[in-house]
Amino acid sequence: MIQKLIQEIQKKNAPVVVGLDPTMQFIPAHLLEQAAGQARSLGFGSRKLEVAAEAVWLFNKGIVDAVCDLVPAVKPQVAMYEQFGIPGMIAYYKTVNYCREKGLIVIGDVKRGDIGSTSAAYALAHLGAVEIDGEKCPAFNEDFATVNPYLGTDGIKPFIDVCNKNDKGIFVLVKTSNPSSGEFQDVLTKDGRPVFELVGDKVREWGESSMDGRYSNVGAVVGATYPEQGRILRDRMPNTYILAPGYGAQGARGKDLSYFFNEDGLGAIVNSSRGIIAAYQKDPYRHFGEEGFAEAARAASIDMIEDLREAIAAR
Amino acid sequence: MIQKLIQEIQKKNAPVVVGLDPTMQFIPAHLLEQAAGQARSLGFGSRKLEVAAEAVWLFNKGIVDAVCDLVPAVKPQVAMYEQFGIPGMIAYYKTVNYCREKGLIVIGDVKRGDIGSTSAAYALAHLGAVEIDGEKCPAFNEDFATVNPYLGTDGIKPFIDVCNKNDKGIFVLVKTSNPSSGEFQDVLTKDGRPVFELVGDKVREWGESSMDGRYSNVGAVVGATYPEQGRILRDRMPNTYILAPGYGAQGARGKDLSYFFNEDGLGAIVNSSRGIIAAYQKDPYRHFGEEGFAEAARAASIDMIEDLREAIAAR
Repeated sequence: MIQKLIQEIQKKNAPVVVGLDPTMQFIPAHLLEQAAGQARSLGFGSRKLEVAAEAVWLFNKGIVDAVCDLVPAVKPQVAMYEQFGIPGMIAYYKTVNYCREKGLIVIGDVKRGDIGSTSAAYALAHLGAVEIDGEKCPAFNEDFATVNPYLGTDGIKPFIDVCNKNDKGIFVLVKTSNPSSGEFQDVLTKDGRPVFELVGDKVREWGESSMDGRYSNVGAVVGATYPEQGRILRDRMPNTYILAPGYGAQGARGKDLSYFFNEDGLGAIVNSSRGIIAAYQKDPYRHFGEEGFAEAARAASIDMIEDLREAIAAR
Repeated sequence: MIQKLIQEIQKKNAPVVVGLDPTMQFIPAHLLEQAAGQARSLGFGSRKLEVAAEAVWLFNKGIVDAVCDLVPAVKPQVAMYEQFGIPGMIAYYKTVNYCREKGLIVIGDVKRGDIGSTSAAYALAHLGAVEIDGEKCPAFNEDFATVNPYLGTDGIKPFIDVCNKNDKGIFVLVKTSNPSSGEFQDVLTKDGRPVFELVGDKVREWGESSMDGRYSNVGAVVGATYPEQGRILRDRMPNTYILAPGYGAQGARGKDLSYFFNEDGLGAIVNSSRGIIAAYQKDPYRHFGEEGFAEAARAASIDMIEDLREAIAAR
């Protein structure tokens, strides 16, 4: 699956992921009105949840239609859908399916991870298919999922098995983009190395069992907000693709990201969520207005792609 | 919320959680037949998913009816539902609601955790309510959720805020029950202490902002399979309630758990999943047969409660 992602990155010349992380604050009023007329009534929680979730879906569809020719991949953050309960999970399901129909690679930002038997269920939920009566029944069916390493190898291995069986991939959290990520991830171990390096070394090792060309289907999440650590990890994990969140709203820019890439210009894909999908609420894209939210997202994507092309060229 | 859990533990004299982690292998044939006749057709994935998820719900209902007078709490593992997609999440939703109606405390074993803004969405999804048009709309509405600490304080704080607002609680992963949990959790830091101790210290610190009587609403997950580490953590976190998975199918017994409890006989609640819900497939409960799966679960619960009472008495 990493080769398929690389092909799409190269085809579009854009190592960019659009994070589909909608919140109520981003949804234009006209979509809420439209959603009120068409949301299905299933009865699992408040009617307002159904309307909000339908509006989220309409919002996503608008964004996806506007950016799908520009970017190779999207990353829906499942938390933003879970908060709307069953209707929200339906919006997630519809978003994943729609993006795949549009030829986009879907990275489910689910950050799952548990003991072996439970991780196996998560892996089936997001990258495989549970077998019932001899029929393979996919559940959410993303192309990649993000995974939390805190439980060690037996929490990761079931994901890799499912990846190998279904040509899928994972990105394991190594050094996350948030301010407090250092609390445990940067703790120095007895031999003087930080925990995130140990995790990075394990990710490289796990990745060896799922190589797909030069790169592995087992990638790493490394926050774009930590360029120094990114540089260290890039060196330690030469065959690991890095998913770098934290661009835009969290503060990182292209220049921070030069060393996330390898000399082949590959090796990293950079995510922006709010900076793209809520661009219409911020300078310099305000003039698009609420009705033009999708066009604003397109303009912000073009600017981000340009910024990253320059960063790679300057490497 | 921790006081409410303690009251229920004391009322039933049973520091026991039944893990509702159904898999297809546990579901009796008669429930699948019954489910085939009554599953709703919503169209999000294969019809077989809908039937399987409905059977899961019937299975859970049977178990819950059989054990709800014996135990204070249940812990549905959301992965087991996610693998059945939208129908599975509906079964989860129905299970949580039904258990709460029955007076059981529901610990959502979701192991979520992300950067601040995303953790806030997870916290609303599981312990709070998203606000839409001035109406508070709960999504899954468990009483407790399990949380992963790898992202540090700003991944945890939003959960605590939601707990304080809605009288809910969390259990943070400290030392997990699985074989490879030591890979990162037992790594010795520069000052000679393992990572899980640092996490335990943070859990204690976080807990101070959500005290509810002697104990905090911020609890810890410590695997029953690691009695030595349990003893260390019990001492370091005197006011932290411990959720101990790993009893039964994963190998731990009451005698391993004495030191998870405080001198007040409180401080820990022990989970068994397969050992209870699939008891009918194992000695000494096989004679209940498939039709008697719920009675077998009841018998296994009684035996587990007895085993733990002895462990506390022997402390």
